[in-house]
Amino acid sequence: MTWYLGVIGGAKCTEEEMELAEEVGREIALRGAILICGGRGGVMEAASRGARLAGGTVVGILPGRRREEGNPYLSIAIPTGLGDARNAIIACAADALVAIGGGYGTLSEIGLALKMKKPVIGLFTWKLERPGMSGGLPLATSAKEAVEMAIMLISAGKENHDAPYPDR
Amino acid sequence: MTWYLGVIGGAKCTEEEMELAEEVGREIALRGAILICGGRGGVMEAASRGARLAGGTVVGILPGRRREEGNPYLSIAIPTGLGDARNAIIACAADALVAIGGGYGTLSEIGLALKMKKPVIGLFTWKLERPGMSGGLPLATSAKEAVEMAIMLISAGKENHDAPYPDR
Amino acid sequence: MTWYLGVIGGAKCTEEEMELAEEVGREIALRGAILICGGRGGVMEAASRGARLAGGTVVGILPGRRREEGNPYLSIAIPTGLGDARNAIIACAADALVAIGGGYGTLSEIGLALKMKKPVIGLFTWKLERPGMSGGLPLATSAKEAVEMAIMLISAGKENHDAPYPDR
Amino acid sequence: MTWYLGVIGGAKCTEEEMELAEEVGREIALRGAILICGGRGGVMEAASRGARLAGGTVVGILPGRRREEGNPYLSIAIPTGLGDARNAIIACAADALVAIGGGYGTLSEIGLALKMKKPVIGLFTWKLERPGMSGGLPLATSAKEAVEMAIMLISAGKENHDAPYPDR
Repeated sequence: MTWYLGVIGGAKCTEEEMELAEEVGREIALRGAILICGGRGGVMEAASRGARLAGGTVVGILPGRRREEGNPYLSIAIPTGLGDARNAIIACAADALVAIGGGYGTLSEIGLALKMKKPVIGLFTWKLERPGMSGGLPLATSAKEAVEMAIMLISAGKENHDAPYPDR
Repeated sequence: MTWYLGVIGGAKCTEEEMELAEEVGREIALRGAILICGGRGGVMEAASRGARLAGGTVVGILPGRRREEGNPYLSIAIPTGLGDARNAIIACAADALVAIGGGYGTLSEIGLALKMKKPVIGLFTWKLERPGMSGGLPLATSAKEAVEMAIMLISAGKENHDAPYPDR
Repeated sequence: MTWYLGVIGGAKCTEEEMELAEEVGREIALRGAILICGGRGGVMEAASRGARLAGGTVVGILPGRRREEGNPYLSIAIPTGLGDARNAIIACAADALVAIGGGYGTLSEIGLALKMKKPVIGLFTWKLERPGMSGGLPLATSAKEAVEMAIMLISAGKENHDAPYPDR
Repeated sequence: MTWYLGVIGGAKCTEEEMELAEEVGREIALRGAILICGGRGGVMEAASRGARLAGGTVVGILPGRRREEGNPYLSIAIPTGLGDARNAIIACAADALVAIGGGYGTLSEIGLALKMKKPVIGLFTWKLERPGMSGGLPLATSAKEAVEMAIMLISAGKENHDAPYPDR
C-alpha cells in the first residue's frame, strides 16, 4: 500500500517556508510515499524539489490547462483547467496533508481536507478557532515530525475506519 | 446590476445559527439581491427560508446529482455532481459572502472566496490567524450589519477594481 | 414540480440555428419550464432570448469566472471557473436536453447527458453511430416538437424510474 | 519532453476491445509515453495492464472518492470526487487520445478533447457526423497505428501551434 501525502502551501512564501517545504518533501520521499501537491511555485515547488532529489515521485494537480505551468520537479503533471476547484482534488487524492505557511488557497485546502476527514498537520500555518471547538490542527515543529505525524494518523485512521477529527 | 450574496454555513448548526441565517436571508432579499448557497439543510436552509419568505430569489448549488437533495426554499436548484468541489462554484458565483458558524466546509468556502478576492463577512464563525497576518475576517454582530457590510464591500471593490484584502 | 430543460449548442452557429434556438427557448418558457444553458453566445444566447422574452427563467452556467461573460438574457448567471468541465453541470442539472447544431462542446454535453441517463433530443445536430448500436438520438424536426418530446421523455422516465436509452 | 497519451473507452466492453486496449497500452509504454485514463475497468483496465506490464507509467483519474475503485494496474491513482466531470480532466491532461469502442462517457471525452483541440484517434469507436462537417475522427485499424498517429499528430501540433481539426 503506497501512501499519498499532500503538501499544501502558498505559491508565494518566505525563505523559511521554502526550506521547511523542501525538507518535508524529502521526508516524504524517504518513506516511499507519493507526494501530491498543486504543482506550482513556492511551497509546492520546494516540496517537489525535496522529494524528487531524494528519488521520490511527485504528482502536481495544476489549476490551468497547460502542463508548462508546472514546476520542474514534477514526475507527473496534470493540468485540470478547473482553477481553484482543483484544490478539492488535492484534498481528495491525499491520504493526509501537511500545511506549510500558506495563504487563502491553503486555507481552503485545509477546510476541504478536514471536510473529507483527512488528517492535516500544520507547520507554521493558519491557526483555526471557532465557537465551541477546542483545539485546532495538530501542529508539528519540524518537517520530520510533520511527516511522521501524518503517516501515524493515516495508519490510525485505517485501523479505526474512523475520522481523525470530530466533524460536524 | 443585481448582487449575488453567498451565505455559507454548516448543514448541522445550532438554533442560534439558524435564527441568524434566516435573518441574513431576509436582509438579502429585502435589498433585492440574489442569495446563493449550497442548497442543503442547516444554515443553508434557514437562510433560504428567510430569503424566500421575504420574496427573494434563492439559488442552491448542490453537491450531489439529485435535485431532491435541495431544501424546499430554493427558487433554482442546481445539482452538480461535484461533491465538495462545488464549494468553489459558490465562492466564484457570489459577489460577497456571509459566513455563519460553520464547519470545515464553511472554512473551505471562506478560503476559496478570499482566494478569489471576494469579501467575506464573519458572523460567529471561524477565527483565522496566520503568521505575519494582522486581522482576520471583518466581523459583524448582527444579520443586518453583516449584509450591509457585504454590500458596502462589493460596492467599494467595484469602484477600486481592487481586492478587499491583501492577499499573497 | 418544475422542469429544467437544457439547451445545448455552439457559441458560433448559423442564422437558422439561432432562429431554431430562439423558438426552442420560447417553447420552454411557454410550458413553465426553467431553461438551463451554458450562458454564452450563439445558440445559448438565442435560446435565452426566446425564453426571456416569453417571460421564462433562464439559468446560465458559465465556464469562466466573470458574470459579465454571460449573455444579456440570463435571469441567473453562475460563473463557475471550471472551463469546459462546466458542461457536466449543465448535463447534471437538466432533466432533459435539446441539442441544436453544435460543435465539439455540444458533442461532449450530449455524451455527458446520455451517460447520466438524461433524454437528449437532436435538432439538426450530430449524427451518432457506434459499432453494435442501432439508432441514435431521437430527432425532432421543429422547435415545438423537440420541446414536446423532451417533456414527454422526462415524464416517461419519472414513471419508469428507467433510463430513456439502453446504456452500457 | 514526455508525452501523455489518453486512452478512453467503456468500463463495459467486448473481448475484442479489451485486446485492442491492452495492445494500445503496450504501444504507449514502449514509446516511453505516460498513459492517462479513467482508471477503472474494461477498456481502461486493459490499457493500464498493457502499459504496466510493458514497464510503463499509468495515471488513473477516478470519478469517485476512494482510491480502491482504481484498477490494479495504475501507477498513480487520483480519486477526484467529481463524478463524470472528471472526464474533462482526462481530456485536459492528455496531449492526444485514442478512443476505443466506447459508450456515452467515451463520447463525452471525445467531445471535450476535440473542444480543447487535442487529437483523437478512433479505433472501432463512435462515427461522428454533423451538418456541414466533412470527415470525422481520424481512424486507425490497429493499436500500433493508433498510437503512431496520435504521436505524429502531437508532434505536428507542437510544430504548427495549430489545432489538428477545424473547430467552430
